[in-house]
Amino acid sequence: MPPRVETQPVSVAVCQLSLRVGEPEQNRAAAAAAVAQAAARGARVVVLPELTPSGYVFADRAEARSLAEPADGPTAAQWTALAAVHRLVIVGGFAELGTDGRVYNSAMLVDESGRRAVYRKAHLWDAEPDFFAAGHEPPPVVATGFGRVAMMICYDVEFPEWVRLPALDGADLLAVPANWPAEQVPVGERPMMSVNVQTAAFANRMFVAAACRCGTERGVSWTGGSMIAGPDGYPLVGPASTAAGPGGAREELLLARCDLRVARDKATGPRNDAHADRRPGLYR
Amino acid sequence: MPPRVETQPVSVAVCQLSLRVGEPEQNRAAAAAAVAQAAARGARVVVLPELTPSGYVFADRAEARSLAEPADGPTAAQWTALAAVHRLVIVGGFAELGTDGRVYNSAMLVDESGRRAVYRKAHLWDAEPDFFAAGHEPPPVVATGFGRVAMMICYDVEFPEWVRLPALDGADLLAVPANWPAEQVPVGERPMMSVNVQTAAFANRMFVAAACRCGTERGVSWTGGSMIAGPDGYPLVGPASTAAGPGGAREELLLARCDLRVARDKATGPRNDAHADRRPGLYR
Repeated sequence: MPPRVETQPVSVAVCQLSLRVGEPEQNRAAAAAAVAQAAARGARVVVLPELTPSGYVFADRAEARSLAEPADGPTAAQWTALAAVHRLVIVGGFAELGTDGRVYNSAMLVDESGRRAVYRKAHLWDAEPDFFAAGHEPPPVVATGFGRVAMMICYDVEFPEWVRLPALDGADLLAVPANWPAEQVPVGERPMMSVNVQTAAFANRMFVAAACRCGTERGVSWTGGSMIAGPDGYPLVGPASTAAGPGGAREELLLARCDLRVARDKATGPRNDAHADRRPGLYR
Repeated sequence: MPPRVETQPVSVAVCQLSLRVGEPEQNRAAAAAAVAQAAARGARVVVLPELTPSGYVFADRAEARSLAEPADGPTAAQWTALAAVHRLVIVGGFAELGTDGRVYNSAMLVDESGRRAVYRKAHLWDAEPDFFAAGHEPPPVVATGFGRVAMMICYDVEFPEWVRLPALDGADLLAVPANWPAEQVPVGERPMMSVNVQTAAFANRMFVAAACRCGTERGVSWTGGSMIAGPDGYPLVGPASTAAGPGGAREELLLARCDLRVARDKATGPRNDAHADRRPGLYR
């Protein structure tokens, strides 16, 4: 039996933030402000970017390690306190110093009861292998008071086989902390990062909420384009401002009412079902 | 070693056609006219819709069977003749009467040398199981004089695991004959069918050319939205007119120059690769 979920739609928020590498206190303060603002607007689930406290563009391995923290470190403490005060769920990325001594590009989910799950990015982008060990565990699906929430990180979501796993495991909502580097986008087009989020939702009839950064860090600009897509693949809100758009990517808080129960029904027509119609025996 | 391919970009065409169920002669004539027009505009690969000769909305099983033909039937003969005259590759859908006596929703690829491959739709939509047996073989990848071309049909492309197979098998171009039923599309949005084609291309860094029908058949309207997406996921041409757009979906011939060699390089960054970065040991 699935766990009890709230029978009313819940507000989900994605926070498109500008953060700075090497300034964890300031970054945590920015995240706390964003969570408070989201809470004031009624959010019950809040998604923060990838590597929120540490920033992303590390100068070297030593810097990355110096900005990593245990899964029960200061970020977990802060987010748990915020979750308790505001009575909501937070998913965000952080640099994890594992008990095995390795550094991971991780995300955690906290609710009022504390840290519920940590996920380690399994598909590493660009220089990340210089700083992080890859994760080897599929995204956990956490039964929260608001629905079943899973998480993966940035480049992970470009692998539809990976997106499929938490969806098959019953996720209603996939939260995606991201730091999408800005790429050239043809005039009039939506960034592929946002398009890909739509298809991840569509292929699995689940909600997908992706929070990207904005601004520039040591010469790297971020795409922006944060979005919450519904189970039909269309945006419920977003994409947010993007690096390619007029004015560039800016800090934004996007909220959407999500009836997460809708994601329990994978029907795509009277006789079709996005999951049951799969033919896994033919895939490899 | 991959087969020799033309070293120049080739023009690929998708034909968005209005067809009529039960009128195979007229439909074949319409397809021939579209192929001739595409050839006149320089196309070397032409994609026709799903079930081009038969139409789609069958009244009953008997009608579907009566409109089916062997893989070496009149459609193969006509398309082979057209391919020889115009020196091009044709991919299109047809109702196949198998040598096993079953009826399949199939596509064939023909070139100057004749029929090169037949593919049977593996993921059946809506009432199709009433008319068709499902295929059980992955999409073949055919080395043509213009590059390696694979095909799948309509609903098949909504399963990213299925799209992955011909991509991993080296397809440069995935041709998708389709009959997407018209669905409600939010104002300002591109139909998810077209968005999904973009992501199929993006996830595999290959070209995807999808030809849909337009018009209405026994009360069913078709989406239109035919498109050729490049390996970066952005449309090279299209989406064509759609049922949700002003004026609805109309007959259109879309062409794009495709440098199919680009699809041989799966690099997504200096240190990343859309296929090599997969972690199949973790997928299930």
